[in-house]
Amino acid sequence: MSRLQKLKDFLKKEKIDALLVSDIKNITYYCGFTGSVGIMLFLKDKAFLLVDGRYVEQAKREVEHVKVVEIPLGSDIWSEAVELARKSKTKRIGFEDNRVSVATYHGVQDRLSGDMFKPVGKKLESERVIKDAKEIKLIKDSAKLCTLIYDCVKRIIKVGMTELEVANEIDYLVRTMGAEFSSFETLVSSGENTAFPHGKPTKKAISRGDLVQLDFGARLSEYSSDISRVMVAGRASDRQKHIYNLVLEAQLVAINKVKEGVLAGEVDEAARKVLRKGGMEKYLKHGIGHGVGLAVHEQPRVSIGSKEVLRRGMVFTVEPGVYVPGWGGVRIEDMVLVTKKGCEVLTDTSKALEVFS
Amino acid sequence: MSRLQKLKDFLKKEKIDALLVSDIKNITYYCGFTGSVGIMLFLKDKAFLLVDGRYVEQAKREVEHVKVVEIPLGSDIWSEAVELARKSKTKRIGFEDNRVSVATYHGVQDRLSGDMFKPVGKKLESERVIKDAKEIKLIKDSAKLCTLIYDCVKRIIKVGMTELEVANEIDYLVRTMGAEFSSFETLVSSGENTAFPHGKPTKKAISRGDLVQLDFGARLSEYSSDISRVMVAGRASDRQKHIYNLVLEAQLVAINKVKEGVLAGEVDEAARKVLRKGGMEKYLKHGIGHGVGLAVHEQPRVSIGSKEVLRRGMVFTVEPGVYVPGWGGVRIEDMVLVTKKGCEVLTDTSKALEVFS
Repeated sequence: MSRLQKLKDFLKKEKIDALLVSDIKNITYYCGFTGSVGIMLFLKDKAFLLVDGRYVEQAKREVEHVKVVEIPLGSDIWSEAVELARKSKTKRIGFEDNRVSVATYHGVQDRLSGDMFKPVGKKLESERVIKDAKEIKLIKDSAKLCTLIYDCVKRIIKVGMTELEVANEIDYLVRTMGAEFSSFETLVSSGENTAFPHGKPTKKAISRGDLVQLDFGARLSEYSSDISRVMVAGRASDRQKHIYNLVLEAQLVAINKVKEGVLAGEVDEAARKVLRKGGMEKYLKHGIGHGVGLAVHEQPRVSIGSKEVLRRGMVFTVEPGVYVPGWGGVRIEDMVLVTKKGCEVLTDTSKALEVFS
Repeated sequence: MSRLQKLKDFLKKEKIDALLVSDIKNITYYCGFTGSVGIMLFLKDKAFLLVDGRYVEQAKREVEHVKVVEIPLGSDIWSEAVELARKSKTKRIGFEDNRVSVATYHGVQDRLSGDMFKPVGKKLESERVIKDAKEIKLIKDSAKLCTLIYDCVKRIIKVGMTELEVANEIDYLVRTMGAEFSSFETLVSSGENTAFPHGKPTKKAISRGDLVQLDFGARLSEYSSDISRVMVAGRASDRQKHIYNLVLEAQLVAINKVKEGVLAGEVDEAARKVLRKGGMEKYLKHGIGHGVGLAVHEQPRVSIGSKEVLRRGMVFTVEPGVYVPGWGGVRIEDMVLVTKKGCEVLTDTSKALEVFS
């Protein structure tokens, strides 16, 4: 089914006769435009892509079956989009309430009565949750690139390099190997800094005895990937090994739980339970995973208590972590594709606690 | 004046007794936290920073005079922030209407009556528009790094390299020279691709005769910079030279116009007028500049008709561009600091049309 046909069905399902799409990943999904700003106006029988002058030529090259409209210089893209909807005599307009700011919404309401708008943001994002065959191929390529880069990093990383230097090598490799860019700001932390789950790389040099946490991904043909691995400089201490093995067990148990029909919350709980038994649950500071696709963080959210039913074709991360303040942390992350009988690990590379010197 | 004192004055000025700050650059500005998600609740006599478990340790390390509050795992940060405001018996709460989504706002309104909220987003961002001495020093360092990297790129770039390869070298250098990261996704385009003002780098190889457009920046000590330069592979054609010189003239005239008391729109018009006389105004597809600071795009906007008065300590870009579909484009960009008598160019490096082979 074509993506625009999918949107047509969405309009029917939501009982709206127009849809304003401003989330750039949704725009890319539905019409292929990869600029950074634009609004799609989708009507029952036609589709427009409004962009400012910076993106007109690019949009014309990228999109099909969608009319590219250049907004006048200095005008407001939202006003233009709503004006176009008004001229088309739409009665009920869906919009991404989870993306559109209050200020934008209020600005637009002056032009059209507020009850014409229907919030459909989360539902629209859900339309991307099951990946089609073409997407799965692209995601697999992107994930595979991560595993190659991890294998390269194992040979590059040395005691004495700073976290920033390691991050720099990763980002350089990501693009050298064919990706457009890293899919998010590469995280490299070492020693006590590994206790910060999202600590940005610093000028700290890696010392002997340090745990090193890597978390990176590639954006390849617009599709993201995401992997986390842990290494240790020199020789792993017993405590490092113990915590590493506990997190690894939690991750493997959670991956094992993934299957069509299971609830996302059950996968979270599977990992949590292992950490609980090991007395470490209190150090788990985030949900177990998130969807990956055009966006590096998208649906489904695999988190505590989630009632979302896993379905074939979903792609998400499984990434339990333990973070002990003042000591350090460990997070192991893979991307999985949900299948009928279980799942396929897309970032399939070694999970041994890698030692370097 | 301390930043928290500044917020206190802001509360008084806006007649609010609480302020919810969720824009991460605003949060960094007021309390120093550099994570990616959080909410500051600022009251008359105290300030809180709410973060999820991933950021607690980092926040505690980074902030002063602000109480770090960890929200429970699986809870919604906005609900927690509003609950904390409610408990503090606030009556009128300012919020960033230009950042907060409609969905978030509606979710929160269930807990507090809607008329307790006052939109102050744009005004709050304006509070960052005049840079203090410390900020100016950091921005200068960041801008200077750009000029060094441009000088390096002149020696690295070769005919046959792809746009992505050049972008990769720039990003690698940015961090090698001490920055945290590039301040935005580096743009490198060549040949006809230079007609796309925001075209991302592609696998296209640079050919003899191509114009090459570079647009990049560094984030150094959290402060961004932004520069654009144009080069030509081999020998510049007469048309390339002609358009380049016209854009350069427009840029120099606009920079010359910058001065305390002048309107932003007058700077835009100064560049526009030069292009108009040269018959090229229709190919200018964007405003002439944007503020740069903690965010790479912030106030002031230097665009058509803007009535914003330039003041000492503002930092913004001056970047006219001409984009001819099917032929190519030229944009020359510098960062300037507004002074009493004019401005200081912060990205002070050669603007000759650089030739390489």
